[in-house]
Amino acid sequence: MPAPHLPPDPASLAGGPAGPRALAPLLHTVLEALADGADARCGPLPPGGPGAVGRAVACRCAPVLPRQGTGAHEALRELVGLLAEGAADPADPHCAAHLHCPPLAVAAAADLAAAALNPSMDSWDQAPAASALETLVTEELAGRVHPGGPDPAALVTTGGTEGNQLGLLLAREAPGASGDGHRLRVLCGANAHHSVLRAAWLLGLPAPHVLPTPAGTLDPAAVHTALRDTPDPGAPALVVATAGTTDSGAVDPLPGLAATAAAHRARLHVDAAYGGPLLFSAARRHLLDGLGRAHSVTLDLHKLGWQPVAAGLLTVPDRAFLKPLEHRAAYLNPGDDTEAGLPDLLGRSLRTTRRPDILKIAVTLRALGEEGLGALIDRTCEAAAQLAALVDSDPRLELRTRPVLSTVLFRPAGATDALVAAVRRRLLADGRAVLGRAHAPDTGGRERLWLKATLLNPHVQPDDLAALIKLVHEAAAGGAGPVHSPARRAVR
Amino acid sequence: MPAPHLPPDPASLAGGPAGPRALAPLLHTVLEALADGADARCGPLPPGGPGAVGRAVACRCAPVLPRQGTGAHEALRELVGLLAEGAADPADPHCAAHLHCPPLAVAAAADLAAAALNPSMDSWDQAPAASALETLVTEELAGRVHPGGPDPAALVTTGGTEGNQLGLLLAREAPGASGDGHRLRVLCGANAHHSVLRAAWLLGLPAPHVLPTPAGTLDPAAVHTALRDTPDPGAPALVVATAGTTDSGAVDPLPGLAATAAAHRARLHVDAAYGGPLLFSAARRHLLDGLGRAHSVTLDLHKLGWQPVAAGLLTVPDRAFLKPLEHRAAYLNPGDDTEAGLPDLLGRSLRTTRRPDILKIAVTLRALGEEGLGALIDRTCEAAAQLAALVDSDPRLELRTRPVLSTVLFRPAGATDALVAAVRRRLLADGRAVLGRAHAPDTGGRERLWLKATLLNPHVQPDDLAALIKLVHEAAAGGAGPVHSPARRAVR
Repeated sequence: MPAPHLPPDPASLAGGPAGPRALAPLLHTVLEALADGADARCGPLPPGGPGAVGRAVACRCAPVLPRQGTGAHEALRELVGLLAEGAADPADPHCAAHLHCPPLAVAAAADLAAAALNPSMDSWDQAPAASALETLVTEELAGRVHPGGPDPAALVTTGGTEGNQLGLLLAREAPGASGDGHRLRVLCGANAHHSVLRAAWLLGLPAPHVLPTPAGTLDPAAVHTALRDTPDPGAPALVVATAGTTDSGAVDPLPGLAATAAAHRARLHVDAAYGGPLLFSAARRHLLDGLGRAHSVTLDLHKLGWQPVAAGLLTVPDRAFLKPLEHRAAYLNPGDDTEAGLPDLLGRSLRTTRRPDILKIAVTLRALGEEGLGALIDRTCEAAAQLAALVDSDPRLELRTRPVLSTVLFRPAGATDALVAAVRRRLLADGRAVLGRAHAPDTGGRERLWLKATLLNPHVQPDDLAALIKLVHEAAAGGAGPVHSPARRAVR
Repeated sequence: MPAPHLPPDPASLAGGPAGPRALAPLLHTVLEALADGADARCGPLPPGGPGAVGRAVACRCAPVLPRQGTGAHEALRELVGLLAEGAADPADPHCAAHLHCPPLAVAAAADLAAAALNPSMDSWDQAPAASALETLVTEELAGRVHPGGPDPAALVTTGGTEGNQLGLLLAREAPGASGDGHRLRVLCGANAHHSVLRAAWLLGLPAPHVLPTPAGTLDPAAVHTALRDTPDPGAPALVVATAGTTDSGAVDPLPGLAATAAAHRARLHVDAAYGGPLLFSAARRHLLDGLGRAHSVTLDLHKLGWQPVAAGLLTVPDRAFLKPLEHRAAYLNPGDDTEAGLPDLLGRSLRTTRRPDILKIAVTLRALGEEGLGALIDRTCEAAAQLAALVDSDPRLELRTRPVLSTVLFRPAGATDALVAAVRRRLLADGRAVLGRAHAPDTGGRERLWLKATLLNPHVQPDDLAALIKLVHEAAAGGAGPVHSPARRAVR
């Protein structure tokens, strides 16, 4: 790809036969700005905290909308460079706080094609091949989640939160669920993702019944008791389980929960946003036994699937379960067009205009294959086991438990919660590491704050893990006091 | 950018210091596949209709998930090539059915950086610079929509549909709106986007009161009567107006609607997904007079803003209006972190993980400036006026009205609705043009089906418009019968 010679028209289009020629020099500038930004940052995130980053952004981005434009290259160089220099980059082994994955280069490259062609997935005449590809790939993935389902199908979502919203909505709208004045009752564990509670609020449902999960997972016996003793026996019920909790990566006992829900004629939704891709690992898919019995399952390939955001899915064992989403708009799916054979896509999402997130997923599945994806998952989970072993062998640290997926909770031995929180904030302010936090009981049953390392980088090395532990010790030596000026300089 | 010499590791990451080197050869392959696909398609969309495209996709994509991967280059070449060859490409001047824009190359290039760095906008420690940039840019845009607002603010959305959902949700949750057993009453015109009705259903609200719009716009007098004669006088009310309807690009009389809503103490939400960017055009922004008085406004820069999907916004004149979205999740915005100065981002969306769609918007605003964007908008609206003039001067065609924005409704003079529908489907099946359709009254007041050309390509030329009309005549000559085999070959 040649470097640019002439300033391009900033109004050049990305599509059409001339699009690739217009894109090439601009992509050259983007890659340079990404490389320069990563060099300038030289670590997992910029030092200085929100104040320093905010000042740099305000200074380098003004004016946001100039009267006359600066041209495409200047704008890309400046703003992409700023974003890279001020990123918390999950490709850095010490950026391990959240379910925030480093995307594969092949997936990011595929996503460029989605942006350039800009298919919109709400009608066939905006996305002929993209909509056919979405059908094919979602059916394949749904079939793997629900191998015994009568007609497995899946929708593409913006992430786990939308997947959980849809799971609750489909239960609210299921045949027989409404009417008679009864409203859907949602039961979930205290370990469930916050989006379950938020979805109930959004949908106008009663607040979910949240069952305690002192062991970290939802107990089928507790669900049985709650369903049996419901204050509204006529109301339909939905049990929400989790396969890979956000706080610890724990997997609820799915076979027991599926049996309990079935015994009470309740529906089951499983939030497998984190754990779902274990299906690709021959060594680990047994952890998801029972998953396919759910009425709906949330998956997120932007977690253990290494996709750029967004790459969510909602799977169902039977396409008929999606019927409540059917919707008509005269300009998109008129009856005579549908009769004439134009596919009706509007029932595939609550959104209307929609990016073809399926493309990067399809390219990744084909490029890596099941074995390639499984190997990445296994390496990532093994790295978490290695980190846990390092923690466990360090007398100055306390390990919460052996990781199930790739999340490790640990804390400086004997530390106060205030010190744990300060360690995390100090590492952030210094730009040295991005660790998360979670509340969970210690071995004595006492609720404590823990540091959380969510490993999602399959290329992390043992040295990286040892260095991370060293950083925690250094930060802990600073005590629980307020966090001060960083050791490294902030974004220019 | 060099062509690849060695097969790369398909598990290479897009981020980190090595990311740009891993991306470069893959992007080379993507651009080649885009160019080859556009050449092979050689028109606005592939011929053959859904059957031919579906067979090609099924054949070329199998197996979706092979046991062993094919490698990054093969997967990109095959699937990106397929998507390009099977695209309805809005960069083609004859692809003009929907509010489906051809994205700018500069915006698509910026979006690559978002994918490579993968910031997630739900917490500061996943997106330090990206979250600061979002604050800055959304405040600038909100200030332009609500120049007199006390504290203008905006949220980034997946599009107009989510913007309208949020507008209804904020009204449902506004102080004093709930309680007393009254539920929010939504009033909109028959010209409103279908997502208004769908949002009410999603949110558990009563079905909106839909007022007829025989003139194409919502009449303030009709709104006054409906608000005065409400069956539930104690219920809070929300009036939803449209600035740029999907069917015809009409703009509701915003000053009159704002005054009417205020007189009845009803809230006003304006869906300006299509028309909102007229704010950037000195010649046309007067069409949006009154917009700033709304309690919330939907904007979509993936329509008249030439962004790849998604680039939606919801603006409010007062940040306090967003308070109902505040939400707590211990792992993302714990109280002590917020007190220590880490920004709380969870109230900026109903999603959790969220891509930084603001980056491409920020780069575009800077690269083109207000004058550059205004010029693109003016050119696009002028092209629509030219098309309308061509139609009006053609005795074989009937023009519905002069366009307000960039949508032109027309039909073969004297045609039946069945012929109009067949013309559209024949052009699709032949791969010659992508036109939309809309119902609207003719000059005699009779409801008819019209062909809809939604012009969003600022580079369209008069010759393209004349050729489009010629294609319509050719397709109309085929009569209203069923659509048969295409003149051009389908996707390989």
